[in-house]
Amino acid sequence: MSSIHQLIIIGSGPAGLTAGIYAARAQLKPLIIEGNTPGGQLMGTTYVENWPGEKSILGPKLMLNMREHAKAMGCDFMAQEVVRVDFSQRPFTLWTKHGDELQAQAVIVATGAVPKRLGVSGEDTYWGRGVTTCAVCDGAFYQNKNVIIVGGGDTAMEDASFMTKFTDKITVIQNLDRLTASEPMKKRVLDNPNISVLYSTQVQEIRGNGEHVQEVLVTDAKTNEQRTLKANVVFVAIGLRPSTRIFEGQLELDSYGYLKVKDHTKTSVEGVFAAGDVADYRYRQAITSAASGCMAALDAERYLECE
Amino acid sequence: MSSIHQLIIIGSGPAGLTAGIYAARAQLKPLIIEGNTPGGQLMGTTYVENWPGEKSILGPKLMLNMREHAKAMGCDFMAQEVVRVDFSQRPFTLWTKHGDELQAQAVIVATGAVPKRLGVSGEDTYWGRGVTTCAVCDGAFYQNKNVIIVGGGDTAMEDASFMTKFTDKITVIQNLDRLTASEPMKKRVLDNPNISVLYSTQVQEIRGNGEHVQEVLVTDAKTNEQRTLKANVVFVAIGLRPSTRIFEGQLELDSYGYLKVKDHTKTSVEGVFAAGDVADYRYRQAITSAASGCMAALDAERYLECE
Repeated sequence: MSSIHQLIIIGSGPAGLTAGIYAARAQLKPLIIEGNTPGGQLMGTTYVENWPGEKSILGPKLMLNMREHAKAMGCDFMAQEVVRVDFSQRPFTLWTKHGDELQAQAVIVATGAVPKRLGVSGEDTYWGRGVTTCAVCDGAFYQNKNVIIVGGGDTAMEDASFMTKFTDKITVIQNLDRLTASEPMKKRVLDNPNISVLYSTQVQEIRGNGEHVQEVLVTDAKTNEQRTLKANVVFVAIGLRPSTRIFEGQLELDSYGYLKVKDHTKTSVEGVFAAGDVADYRYRQAITSAASGCMAALDAERYLECE
Repeated sequence: MSSIHQLIIIGSGPAGLTAGIYAARAQLKPLIIEGNTPGGQLMGTTYVENWPGEKSILGPKLMLNMREHAKAMGCDFMAQEVVRVDFSQRPFTLWTKHGDELQAQAVIVATGAVPKRLGVSGEDTYWGRGVTTCAVCDGAFYQNKNVIIVGGGDTAMEDASFMTKFTDKITVIQNLDRLTASEPMKKRVLDNPNISVLYSTQVQEIRGNGEHVQEVLVTDAKTNEQRTLKANVVFVAIGLRPSTRIFEGQLELDSYGYLKVKDHTKTSVEGVFAAGDVADYRYRQAITSAASGCMAALDAERYLECE
C-alpha cells in the first residue's frame, strides 16, 4: 500500500464502469477492482436489444465497449476481488484476495447480484442460450415458443404474465405445493388460460441439442413420476443474491441482503456510495445500473469536493 | 380520434425514446409525440464522451440511433406538439397543436427542460460549439483554456469548481452584486485563486471566428464600462425551465415547475409517469434520463397489466 486513492470502485458491470467513466472525467483517477466476474451479468448473455441506441448487440461486446471507454478516460483496473473492507474510519481500507491492502477517500460499491441457480444438469451448458433470468430482457426472442418459468414468487408471476404477450405456451414450475407470490400477482397468473402451473415439481435436467434448449425433465415430488416438457427457454426466477457478504457489519443491508440507500446512492456510511443491482431489486436493467453508476460518481465527486 | 392508445409518450429525448424502446418490447404499441425539439437537448450538442460504451459520439447521432432503435422495436411517431391535456379522467385526453385529439390509458411525460438563455448576440451562433450548459458533460474538452461561467447560483459555483480540474483561467460573471449560491458552494469558489468573480456584470455579446468562441463582451452595470474577456467556452448556468406549462393544474409541480414524483416515476395522477429532466434537476445526464425512461415504461407496463 503506497498512496491513498481518491475513489475506489468495487465491481465492473454497467454500474461500476459507468461510475468509472464519470469519475475519470471528473479527474478522480478512479481505481476499478473488477471482481470475480469482470463485466458482470451481461457477460453471460448473448444478444441485448434494450440498450438504447443499439438495436442488437452482444452483451459481452457492450461490456467490452464500456471497459475500453472507461480505460480511455483514465480509469485504472485491478483484476482482483475484494474480500474484506473496513469502512469504520477514513480513509477506508480494502483488502483483496491476493493480500493487497488499499485505501480510499471514497468508495462506490457496484458488486451486483447473482441470480440463484437451480444447480441441475444442463443449466450451465445452456446459460445465456435458452436458460436466462430476465423475461423483460429476453422475452421478445421467444414469440410463439414453449416457455418454462421456474419459481413461485412475484418475479416468476411477473415473468409468466409478461410472456403472455408473446406466446400461449407457458408453464410455471414450482417446487412447493403453492405459489408464494402476492395475491394480485398470483391471481393474474391463475386466471390466464395460457399459463399452466405445475406444483410440487422439481426441475431435474435441462436438455438441448448443444445449441439451444429443447426440453426440461421434471419430477413430481409427490408421486416421483418423471416427465419431459417441451421448452425453448427456461426463465429461472428463484431470486437473486446481492453480492454484499463482505459488507455485513459495515453497511446497512435490508432483510434480503441488498444495500440500503437513501437519496439515490448514499449508503449508511458517508463517503460510501452504491450503484447497480447491489441496491436495486426492482428494475435491474443495464441502462438503470449504468445510470446509478453515473449518479454515484457525481455524488462521490461532490462529496470529495466538499471534504 | 379513432382508438384509445395503451401508452402515449410525450417527448423524444433519451427519456422518451428509451421509454419507447422498453414499452414497444412489452407490446404496448407506444405512440411517441415528438414535440418541438425532436431528440431533445442533445440535438444541440456536438461530441458526447460520457454515453457509456461510446468514447466519442455526436449528440445528434446518438439520438438518431435511439430513434431508429425505437422505430425498429415498433414505436409509432407523431411529429406534433402536445398543447393541452386532460388527466382528470381515464382514458386521458391529449390535444396537439394541429388540433388532433388523442386518448391513452397511460401517459409518460418526458418533455424535458430548456436551459435558460442569455439572449445575447452570438449565443445562438455558438450554441453547442463553445456555448453550453453542462460543465460535467463538456468540461474535459477545455484543458488549460479560458473558461467563462455565467451565473451566481449553485450550478454556476459547481461548474466553476468542477472546471478547476482542467484549467486555472476561470471567470464567473454574475449580473447581481452578490452570489446567490449556498454558503459552502460560494466559499469553495471564493477561496479558489484560479477563479475570478465579476459582479454586477452583464454579458453583451459572444464573439468568435465562425467556428468557435474567442471572446465575450461584458458591461459593468455600475460604471457602464465595456471590456472583452478571452473565452474558449461559455457555460450558461442561469438555470433551466422544465417544460411543464401544459401540465399546470393537472399534475403536481414543485416551486420551480418540475414534476413532483414519488417511487421513482409516479406523478400525482395514477397512470401518468414522468421520465428525464422534466422531473430531475440534479443529475440531468443522457444516461440518467434514459434510465428513468426505462423505469417509467416498466412501471407503466405493470400499471396497465394490473388494471
